[in-house]
Amino acid sequence: MSPKPMARPGGRSARVQASVHAAVRELEAERGREALTVPLVAARAGVTPSTIYRRWGDLQELLSDVAVERLRPDTEPADHGALRADLTAWAEQFLDEMSSTAGRAYIRDALLGDPDGGNAGQCSAYAAAQVDLVLDRARERGENGAGGEGGEADAPAREAVMDHVVAPIMYRILFRPEGLSTVYARELVARALDGLPD
Amino acid sequence: MSPKPMARPGGRSARVQASVHAAVRELEAERGREALTVPLVAARAGVTPSTIYRRWGDLQELLSDVAVERLRPDTEPADHGALRADLTAWAEQFLDEMSSTAGRAYIRDALLGDPDGGNAGQCSAYAAAQVDLVLDRARERGENGAGGEGGEADAPAREAVMDHVVAPIMYRILFRPEGLSTVYARELVARALDGLPD
Repeated sequence: MSPKPMARPGGRSARVQASVHAAVRELEAERGREALTVPLVAARAGVTPSTIYRRWGDLQELLSDVAVERLRPDTEPADHGALRADLTAWAEQFLDEMSSTAGRAYIRDALLGDPDGGNAGQCSAYAAAQVDLVLDRARERGENGAGGEGGEADAPAREAVMDHVVAPIMYRILFRPEGLSTVYARELVARALDGLPD
Repeated sequence: MSPKPMARPGGRSARVQASVHAAVRELEAERGREALTVPLVAARAGVTPSTIYRRWGDLQELLSDVAVERLRPDTEPADHGALRADLTAWAEQFLDEMSSTAGRAYIRDALLGDPDGGNAGQCSAYAAAQVDLVLDRARERGENGAGGEGGEADAPAREAVMDHVVAPIMYRILFRPEGLSTVYARELVARALDGLPD
């Protein structure tokens, strides 16, 4: 489905979205994923099936929206006082969450019911925003060498972290799920920070 | 579907697979993707719908198998006489093919109807095999510095190329389809070969 109505907080649209999302989560927990149907979700949410079809198109698109909601990070990356520690901890946690059984199911759902790519883009934007927070913090600490006494390498750009830390993790999750360990996350970060002082 | 019967070349199983795959390709070209149904494909292939259900489970799993077939590289990477040139040309072509409208549709299909991850793994194995060919060739030329006069860096391992050239391209295709240019492919290769002589 293309244009989704903007949800005014507290408006009817927002209330419908919240109750339909909640119905999906409850029914999934109670009866399992395979049992979900649009009429079942509608009945639980107290809306008509046509409300769901109008707004989401079909079950797969609804599941994609619910998955993206669940992939939204609920905390800021922890502050360990240094870029290397922050990025390592964040990458370890990202790998952990995304490669869990639940994480894999959400990534899959997010991609599948997403004809215009908006939900996939949102997943990527969540990761990029977390990486930005880590890098901004390093910059505020004066860690990136910009304007420093010279010699030190700059902190990596966000795009480099997306390409060389986030992308390899997500590629493995989707295409070759072996080798997804904490050590792997650390190695990716070490490589991305290559040239920076420890 | 889990265990697919091994296809003996020339056996009935192989003939069924070939005619069903051909039916999907023809019908998709004639009527478009949305028009495909299992009964339609079965009629064109001259098999019963239950043959398709038994072997593939459902339409999405059949489309996943067809997509993987189409993603199989049909030529070896070109030999330009040097690792840097070979890997750059291969990455440019890989990006080009995978990010085309057809390529994106096949990647999506391959991932979607793939409950056990076998088809996604096959896509990745195709890319890995191509990368291996390029790296083996460089090794045969003595390009990798191993046993050389010392000083030169080694050619990158296959896993490094998968993580830092293939993964970023596939991540962008699936999650953030901007920035997919020839220049991007070249930059990824240049970074992966960083430290090697030009």
